[in-house]
Amino acid sequence: MRLTRYFLPTLKETPAEAQIASHRLMLRAGMVRQAGAGIYSWLPLGFRVLKRIETIVHEEMQRAGAHAVLMPTMQLADLWRESGRYDAYGPEMLRIRDRHGRDMLYGPTNEEQITQIMRDDIQSYRDLPRNLYHIQWKFRDEIRPRFGVMRGREFLMKDAYSFDLDFESARRSYNTMFVAYLRTYARMGLRAIPLQADSGPIGGDLSHEFVILAATGETRVHADRRLLDMDAACSGIDYDGDLEPVVRAWTSLYAASDDKHDPETAPVSGSDLLVARGIEVGHIFYFGTKYSEAMGASVAMPDGERRLLHGGSYGIGVSRLAGAIIEACHDDAGIIWPDSVAPFDAGIVNLKTGDPLCDSIAAAAEERLHAAGLEVLHDDRDERAGVKFSDMDLIGLPWQIIVGPRGAASSRVELKRRADGQRLDLSLDDAVPCILDSRT
Amino acid sequence: MRLTRYFLPTLKETPAEAQIASHRLMLRAGMVRQAGAGIYSWLPLGFRVLKRIETIVHEEMQRAGAHAVLMPTMQLADLWRESGRYDAYGPEMLRIRDRHGRDMLYGPTNEEQITQIMRDDIQSYRDLPRNLYHIQWKFRDEIRPRFGVMRGREFLMKDAYSFDLDFESARRSYNTMFVAYLRTYARMGLRAIPLQADSGPIGGDLSHEFVILAATGETRVHADRRLLDMDAACSGIDYDGDLEPVVRAWTSLYAASDDKHDPETAPVSGSDLLVARGIEVGHIFYFGTKYSEAMGASVAMPDGERRLLHGGSYGIGVSRLAGAIIEACHDDAGIIWPDSVAPFDAGIVNLKTGDPLCDSIAAAAEERLHAAGLEVLHDDRDERAGVKFSDMDLIGLPWQIIVGPRGAASSRVELKRRADGQRLDLSLDDAVPCILDSRT
Repeated sequence: MRLTRYFLPTLKETPAEAQIASHRLMLRAGMVRQAGAGIYSWLPLGFRVLKRIETIVHEEMQRAGAHAVLMPTMQLADLWRESGRYDAYGPEMLRIRDRHGRDMLYGPTNEEQITQIMRDDIQSYRDLPRNLYHIQWKFRDEIRPRFGVMRGREFLMKDAYSFDLDFESARRSYNTMFVAYLRTYARMGLRAIPLQADSGPIGGDLSHEFVILAATGETRVHADRRLLDMDAACSGIDYDGDLEPVVRAWTSLYAASDDKHDPETAPVSGSDLLVARGIEVGHIFYFGTKYSEAMGASVAMPDGERRLLHGGSYGIGVSRLAGAIIEACHDDAGIIWPDSVAPFDAGIVNLKTGDPLCDSIAAAAEERLHAAGLEVLHDDRDERAGVKFSDMDLIGLPWQIIVGPRGAASSRVELKRRADGQRLDLSLDDAVPCILDSRT
Repeated sequence: MRLTRYFLPTLKETPAEAQIASHRLMLRAGMVRQAGAGIYSWLPLGFRVLKRIETIVHEEMQRAGAHAVLMPTMQLADLWRESGRYDAYGPEMLRIRDRHGRDMLYGPTNEEQITQIMRDDIQSYRDLPRNLYHIQWKFRDEIRPRFGVMRGREFLMKDAYSFDLDFESARRSYNTMFVAYLRTYARMGLRAIPLQADSGPIGGDLSHEFVILAATGETRVHADRRLLDMDAACSGIDYDGDLEPVVRAWTSLYAASDDKHDPETAPVSGSDLLVARGIEVGHIFYFGTKYSEAMGASVAMPDGERRLLHGGSYGIGVSRLAGAIIEACHDDAGIIWPDSVAPFDAGIVNLKTGDPLCDSIAAAAEERLHAAGLEVLHDDRDERAGVKFSDMDLIGLPWQIIVGPRGAASSRVELKRRADGQRLDLSLDDAVPCILDSRT
């Protein structure tokens, strides 16, 4: 992609309204623009990141046996009256009346809607277990939206819903999601810590929040340092096997949020205790028969008996993750994208646009990166080198290929790794393999 | 994908509320379920189709130089007050008040929003031309929603917006979209006819609707039969070249909707005149400075003069297309998906689930299709052959591999092409290449 043809409105100044790093950097890097309080438009660079996050979430959900659906954003109030949540939800629910005077709402979540689908279309015990998820925009009318996409009103969420015949089977579904979440965050280059969370009226221990570590995170986590050594990618996991030992290995190590941590009773302390900042990016939750009972969702067992569905819900803040990843991965110069979610794999900085030699080396670099299956943003603007360098650092692509008149004469380029600033002087022939090697 | 693990709630009975073929078939094939008047949930099979349509639209937009963004569904009323459309739009606009009493709306389209982004972030003539698009849910509060996803209230639309310095450049942007639209529909296996449309207050001839031919379509089209022989794939097109001759070749041939067609004055008649039913699936439109003038969106020219942006908008009904394709491609038994948008490339019908030989041949077929990069739905249910055949015809996958006890003994399967019912008795070794060959 040539930058002269792209829409990348970077900002030199830090916007005054942005209080946290990710918000500042997303505005400065031309990723998003505010469309209203807590509502954002995603510009081309931001949209690419959002899509790459989405793709990882889709892949890991499907690997874990969940099926993608898409429920609408607008829901009927009557559906929420069945569960009793229409009155209970409070002012965060955006309530709407259509032209015929029917009460509707912009979905803040979809338990009722998915339970309705199950109730209408699942008849037999043989149709279970099922796990359906979607990635859809939600709206929660936060009283004081802030922190950019980290706490927006309109936000993109992945919400999965499992349905099982009994608690034991539901626990298997829960464990599957637990592992899928670990894998999802690991693939994004994040270190996630599962924290036991309030389970609400159901009781039991099947409720976890996933917090990723980020120096500028909003909450403080106290955890057994050995959690950092766990295999978060869950290499070689077999979802058809017993996941209980994996989940137990993770949950047996201490981890608590600030408000639950008590130094007196915590089982770890001193150098064994990791105290770090983090950001909540997911929540998994077993809610039993709460919705199936209220809405009459059951299946027939072999003996004809009706059995209420046991449900769980599993959320990941997809748009929030774009911000959370930046909180975890940035420096003073800008964003440092993990390879897996970077909007482009590499950038090309042509230091002397208009110089025939530099132009041809830069074009050749673009072509070779493409041929290798990499996505590349080529800064072919007629701008000063300083502007190009600082924009490229700001948008944080993992690799930069810098083409200058000195090296160009001998077909040499400078290859810079954004994460550590390491620079290599290489022939163009060697630069592409060097990038590819680092990714495998 | 094993059907026993999938969520595919097919219906034997035709739902009473469905008046047209696509609506009936989408319900019966378990693609969608109604969530409210004109509001649908997309179940796994439907979601796959929606994604494949989206992917083609994305690819063709990007090939034509447009960049993907994502604007929010909720918009501020004040933005629409700038253009004057907040009052003008009427009761189809879903108006909403948030918890702070601010007037908002669920976007029915995005001209104001994209113009705001351009106004704020494009400064110089050098930043043009630009074409930005998104695929996002819209809401139009139709008084009488019907025909399933063909005329829903919440619907998925691709809307692109071009911005240029003057009319001549805007015409190039328009022509680019014209060609991209032809290609998009052609890739979906559809025959699209561009009809000159009302251009509204701007005047000029830069407004076309795209209608695809479908025997059960809602409108009647009268057109020069030679349009059917045109190269709709626009093979070898160069978007950087002059597209005017291509566009002129298409638009010089007569085509008119029923209400505009006058047999007395039409330049073609008799056997040269094609009279067919069709469905509108796209609209492209040059609107000049309508929004940039109202909202003050301009750029600086080399001499410092400010120039208003010349805009166009380009819509494709993405969710509507799922229905429209079915209207164009079905028979009494069900849907007949074109290869490019089929939810799975092939289905496997195991006629005797539980029989070790049939099970192993069916499993081998699934494995080979996967290995060849094809997506496959394997009906491994313990159901009668008749149920499996009719479900497979209903959901309309392009190919069926039928595994029965007779052929299984000699590793032979029946390969059925859904479109024409043609059946071949083949060894499993030959079936996969046969599918692959037909697709290239």
